Amino acid sequence: MAQPRYDVLGIGNAIVDVIARAEDDFLVAQGMHKGGMALIDEARAAAIYAAMGPAVESSGGSAANTIVGVASFGARAAFVGKVKDDELGRTFAHDIRAANVAFDVTPAKDGPSTARCYIMVTPDGERTMNTYLGAAQELQPGDIDEAAIANAAVTYLEGYLWDPPQAKEAFVKAAAIAHKAGRQVALTLSDSFCVDRYRAEFLDLIQKGIVDIVFANEHELHSLYETADFETGVKALQQDARLAVVTRSAKGCMVVSGEGLEAVNAVPIEQVADVTGAGDLFAAGFLVGLARGQDRRDAARLGALAAAEVIQHIGARPAVSLKALAADSGLAV
Amino acid sequence: MAQPRYDVLGIGNAIVDVIARAEDDFLVAQGMHKGGMALIDEARAAAIYAAMGPAVESSGGSAANTIVGVASFGARAAFVGKVKDDELGRTFAHDIRAANVAFDVTPAKDGPSTARCYIMVTPDGERTMNTYLGAAQELQPGDIDEAAIANAAVTYLEGYLWDPPQAKEAFVKAAAIAHKAGRQVALTLSDSFCVDRYRAEFLDLIQKGIVDIVFANEHELHSLYETADFETGVKALQQDARLAVVTRSAKGCMVVSGEGLEAVNAVPIEQVADVTGAGDLFAAGFLVGLARGQDRRDAARLGALAAAEVIQHIGARPAVSLKALAADSGLAV
Repeated sequence: MAQPRYDVLGIGNAIVDVIARAEDDFLVAQGMHKGGMALIDEARAAAIYAAMGPAVESSGGSAANTIVGVASFGARAAFVGKVKDDELGRTFAHDIRAANVAFDVTPAKDGPSTARCYIMVTPDGERTMNTYLGAAQELQPGDIDEAAIANAAVTYLEGYLWDPPQAKEAFVKAAAIAHKAGRQVALTLSDSFCVDRYRAEFLDLIQKGIVDIVFANEHELHSLYETADFETGVKALQQDARLAVVTRSAKGCMVVSGEGLEAVNAVPIEQVADVTGAGDLFAAGFLVGLARGQDRRDAARLGALAAAEVIQHIGARPAVSLKALAADSGLAV
Repeated sequence: MAQPRYDVLGIGNAIVDVIARAEDDFLVAQGMHKGGMALIDEARAAAIYAAMGPAVESSGGSAANTIVGVASFGARAAFVGKVKDDELGRTFAHDIRAANVAFDVTPAKDGPSTARCYIMVTPDGERTMNTYLGAAQELQPGDIDEAAIANAAVTYLEGYLWDPPQAKEAFVKAAAIAHKAGRQVALTLSDSFCVDRYRAEFLDLIQKGIVDIVFANEHELHSLYETADFETGVKALQQDARLAVVTRSAKGCMVVSGEGLEAVNAVPIEQVADVTGAGDLFAAGFLVGLARGQDRRDAARLGALAAAEVIQHIGARPAVSLKALAADSGLAV
């Protein structure tokens, strides 16, 4: 098998985040489910924007954040996702390329505008997301570059791709190409409500081995197996998945595989500013570790390090070089 | 005299900041003068954007930042500046209105796009700015609402307004309206290079009493009086200005008037993240103090508090309520 061109190639919704601080009262008044991600239409997007406070715009998207994290560790990274050829689309493209990520998808010439996620960050650092998918919905199987996928050690997919109908087909196509080339496929479950919407399909992907590596947080695990019990969920996941990691915020994470369960601690921090991107960046570190041939425990440590960095500031992408941070922490990448 | 509707009305360039971290080497390679503000055309803007790292977009503009600070202290604030009716223009308008600032200038329907300032923040927290003025240059005397100016206790003007030719006329018109209504006029000198460009005109404004209150940092003071000696500059300013404040970064500030000189300390902080907005927010606190009838020393303390807040995070506008911060610090507003 040829040496892969990319360590990780991510496929996901290409989104610009619009981030504002908000009180819990605001979430209640707006009928938002704290900590979740709601899909919204253009009218609701306009209403939320009009009601929310002063914001900061910052490129986001779950898998895109992960891939930027991969590049920040110094690994070779590519991203596939759809923007429109508009101001926000150019912002997204600039930011991901400036982060040393290959990004070659042709922007949509017309149709809905580039996707936006209105993120409310409450004083406890929790984020509540409202996503207008816009142009991200235009991602199609034709946007999947077979050579690029075949040349990536891991193809990483976000569960959110199940929302735009054609993106799902692109996802399945990419997974097939990756496996045909002898590469690995990873999936994040994205969000407990997303799991609620697509439970049977996600289980199918995992059980049939269409994905090799699964990332989930506790809420997503509970939703996937419709259980309130962590142990029950973990046991079921161990049955179904080749390799999985369940992230547990300050409690660290659990690496789950046929070889057993392994708990790895979180990196302690003083204060959480904004949890946006915590799971995305955990996945970045873990995948970089695997791609570089590290054992799963060390890979999880890299994940914990990247997650700790991103929750200490506003925004879902690293503010410092993760490669330098890992070196400072005595972790190899 | 009627009770004013606004404590402070600001007139300035309406700009969206595009902020990225950069190494000093980048500034050298790009021929940028560290710590300064350079005016750039559209081609240079595109070249800088292509070369710079991943960025965050955040509404800015010097006087606009000040006015948002004024509102954050709970004072009544209005802003006058020109955006285009484009994505960034709508972002600017949203952010300033969401900060409780009255903003009623009609956006330009055509012509150049909304102004952008490409800001490089180096590891020492210093910022280097490159401004594409775009639609901000379209501000005209016709955009000045006579009733609003006459109803503001202080009209605050940025020296940067001297760059777009018609904005200068708007500035002079506003100052005349304010004085006719018995109100005060304040001016920030904005930037030492800006002072270099318009030294004679700025001195004329100050000496003729067209402005009552002058804000300057040390570099601007030195440029205004073409001296490298702080004492010499301060003495000249004391001769020329009714009331002035010279800000001196960590050394605090000097309040300068016919009654004498008064030094006020800076608020100590642990680490500077980004100095963007330090002078703007100092002016906010000082003007709020004056508008609320506080003595100059207490007004300067409010300025120091607001400046300390804004330099501890990325971005030029307060991340917390300055009213609450003042209360926590035992300062009245």
